[in-house]
Amino acid sequence: MSQPNQDVAPDQGGSDQPLRVALLGCGVVGSSVARLLTRNGEDLAARVGRPLEIVGVAVRRLGRDRSDTGVPADRFTTEAEELVTRADIVIEVIGGIEPARSLILRAMEHGASVVTANKALLAQDGPTLYDAAQRHGVDLYYEAAVAGAIPLLRPLRVSLVGDRVRRVLGIVNGTTNYVLDKMDSTGAGFAEAVEQAQSLGYAEADPTADVEGFDAAAKAAILASLAFHTRVSGQDVYREGITEVTAADVAAAAAMDCVVKLLAICERTEAGVSVRVHTAMIPRSHPLAGVREAYNAVFVEAEAAGQLMFYGPGAGGDPTASAVLGDVVAVARHLVGGGLGPRESTYASLPILAMGQALTRYYISLDVTDRPGVLAQVATVFADQGVSIQQVHQQVRDPQATDTPESSTSEGAGQAGGSNAELVIVTHTATDAALSATVDALSALPIVRGVTSVMRVEGG
Amino acid sequence: MSQPNQDVAPDQGGSDQPLRVALLGCGVVGSSVARLLTRNGEDLAARVGRPLEIVGVAVRRLGRDRSDTGVPADRFTTEAEELVTRADIVIEVIGGIEPARSLILRAMEHGASVVTANKALLAQDGPTLYDAAQRHGVDLYYEAAVAGAIPLLRPLRVSLVGDRVRRVLGIVNGTTNYVLDKMDSTGAGFAEAVEQAQSLGYAEADPTADVEGFDAAAKAAILASLAFHTRVSGQDVYREGITEVTAADVAAAAAMDCVVKLLAICERTEAGVSVRVHTAMIPRSHPLAGVREAYNAVFVEAEAAGQLMFYGPGAGGDPTASAVLGDVVAVARHLVGGGLGPRESTYASLPILAMGQALTRYYISLDVTDRPGVLAQVATVFADQGVSIQQVHQQVRDPQATDTPESSTSEGAGQAGGSNAELVIVTHTATDAALSATVDALSALPIVRGVTSVMRVEGG
Repeated sequence: MSQPNQDVAPDQGGSDQPLRVALLGCGVVGSSVARLLTRNGEDLAARVGRPLEIVGVAVRRLGRDRSDTGVPADRFTTEAEELVTRADIVIEVIGGIEPARSLILRAMEHGASVVTANKALLAQDGPTLYDAAQRHGVDLYYEAAVAGAIPLLRPLRVSLVGDRVRRVLGIVNGTTNYVLDKMDSTGAGFAEAVEQAQSLGYAEADPTADVEGFDAAAKAAILASLAFHTRVSGQDVYREGITEVTAADVAAAAAMDCVVKLLAICERTEAGVSVRVHTAMIPRSHPLAGVREAYNAVFVEAEAAGQLMFYGPGAGGDPTASAVLGDVVAVARHLVGGGLGPRESTYASLPILAMGQALTRYYISLDVTDRPGVLAQVATVFADQGVSIQQVHQQVRDPQATDTPESSTSEGAGQAGGSNAELVIVTHTATDAALSATVDALSALPIVRGVTSVMRVEGG
Repeated sequence: MSQPNQDVAPDQGGSDQPLRVALLGCGVVGSSVARLLTRNGEDLAARVGRPLEIVGVAVRRLGRDRSDTGVPADRFTTEAEELVTRADIVIEVIGGIEPARSLILRAMEHGASVVTANKALLAQDGPTLYDAAQRHGVDLYYEAAVAGAIPLLRPLRVSLVGDRVRRVLGIVNGTTNYVLDKMDSTGAGFAEAVEQAQSLGYAEADPTADVEGFDAAAKAAILASLAFHTRVSGQDVYREGITEVTAADVAAAAAMDCVVKLLAICERTEAGVSVRVHTAMIPRSHPLAGVREAYNAVFVEAEAAGQLMFYGPGAGGDPTASAVLGDVVAVARHLVGGGLGPRESTYASLPILAMGQALTRYYISLDVTDRPGVLAQVATVFADQGVSIQQVHQQVRDPQATDTPESSTSEGAGQAGGSNAELVIVTHTATDAALSATVDALSALPIVRGVTSVMRVEGG
């Protein structure tokens, strides 16, 4: 296993000899890849310097009509393990851990370079794939694994490689962005918005991987690894999904002229690297706030480059296939002209911070008894935890109609003893542990009837 | 001259042996490059696999204190011609055609790979540089030449290489964007806004290259060449600057809920490729409309990928240096690990269309005699030229105060014979020649007192 190309050397024959491409998986993305490879064959051949030929497409079951791909029927096979031994380039778009991992490793053993869109596998076991690629002297590319068609990984690992990335802040999951966008624009609750997303094909029947943040966490791990030259796996990523977001949270954000977004955040601080996925309020004036429906967008902040943004479709057959084919051409050019793509770069090996050490800001909304001294008590709790307050709003609620708060300018001014008020507080930056402890301490205060909403704040 | 590396082979010695970097130019960008190369030396060495050493910085005059770059004083030299013969990587940030071109060619002859930010040279004489790079087996990279720090060329020529680019629509000149943004946000006239830009360092004392669109045209040529695999030089680009834009134009755009932007447009149509730089009204809802001050942003539309946007700082020392260093690391990795970057790709050789053949839309504002039948006469002119009208607004002007138009819903309804009206027309897409002929024919109509504003419309 440690000798490169032991069985079948990459086909580097005459200049007209096609490069052999094996495609693993023929679902939405796979069939787009096949169709584009076939339809744009002449362009691709001119750009690579050699034709690309699909020597086989591995599918689970034969018999379906796949003629729309343009691939001859006899090239479809269920024998993926055999197929990967006779290709120069293997494209893996099956997804999931197995059999994808075994097939990729087997392909590399047999001298093939690999292009994959498999974020889950890369986040769980990227180093194994990288090691195998290095051992066998082949390429491993995976632009399509994060943010679909948006060129993002190549800019991060090549264009910005002379710079120091400080922060990556992105909307990298289209399903959850669609759901949160609908909640914001229509006032719908979470369940209703998810149903709508499902009916339009933006969410799967079982939306767990998306709404619980697993998909975004895998992408955050990949982004952080590249941005900080440090191995970050999916398990290292703090993860909160969007299932707890209520219509009231979205309305509270709107009242602050903010929107709620699920963000993948990769941050480099003095202490180390924080990699996390959670919802946060961001100001409507922030460019990420304008990212609607199922679109993706990623902000990158680098020391010299400043703030960059990349925006586009984050999923879908053709957009993902576009990213896959860009990688295929890169790999093919190496096979024709020599060279290899960038290796895994982990030299920095920065420590990965626990969520408690991350620096965040909180929005906290409290239901409090409306009487003098309340704000002083609340402010003391913040001070005890070393958390500094950026702004406070207090609104007296009519005890008869607690859902329709009215503005009040002074603390508890002349209200009946039994009425209650809503206290909205936005903090300055502090450790997430201190902020979390503050919320716990607040909810234990007798004058606090309830903590009605807690959200992190980003992009300020 | 045709034998690669004839005098000095690239230094590919022991793995600790530094790669020799020569820097040509030490202005704003050059000093940022030097500073970052020095300050981030350890990171860069780890990412490349070999240290990078600045063996010399070519400057016009010695004697200035350049210690802030971190480069020892004895490395500065006025002997650029000698310096380029003893480097593995030459970074050219002098700008302009000569001596930059001769120095780059000389560097390549001596086996050095070249990283440049020189858009003017690339747009005028790119093929010569590419040919020399190919002949001598060296790399030529120029990410910083377009849109500063924004990774744009690499995405276009690598990430999207498996796709078909249809259209590139970009704000690629920060100075003109600053001027137009100020005109939009403050109502200032052109001259006033340019002065403001100059006082803040966003415009040069002689702003010709920017405000006349030469800079944007050079960038458009580079973008179109990469996007369409076709040689496009700066001379092929139709170019209109922003000097004719009036406060009234900007106000007219605002009345249509649009902003005026200077756009670089590269479009592929059935007939060929249209590459042009001119101002256009774009809807405020379009993402490019939100690009403020001196920022750059580029929309790319590809067949499979869909619509992508790249946004960031388009100029400035550090952002440009970030892009230069990304290229330096790419080149250095090739020197360490083998391989070469992509070559010039011109296989498509698509015809380049004249401006008259480009498909555009016009906004036309006419000062007309307000009497029945005017609209019919005007509409006939459009029909004669085969131009279809998308929308018409008519506003009667008070003859006593022609600057304060009032709304009128019906054509010339019951107005006094001597009053005039403003007729605003937005067309559907037509050839620019037909639209231009329409404007000429309209101004010859007796009932047209004057053509008050003509602007192209994009992004609809």
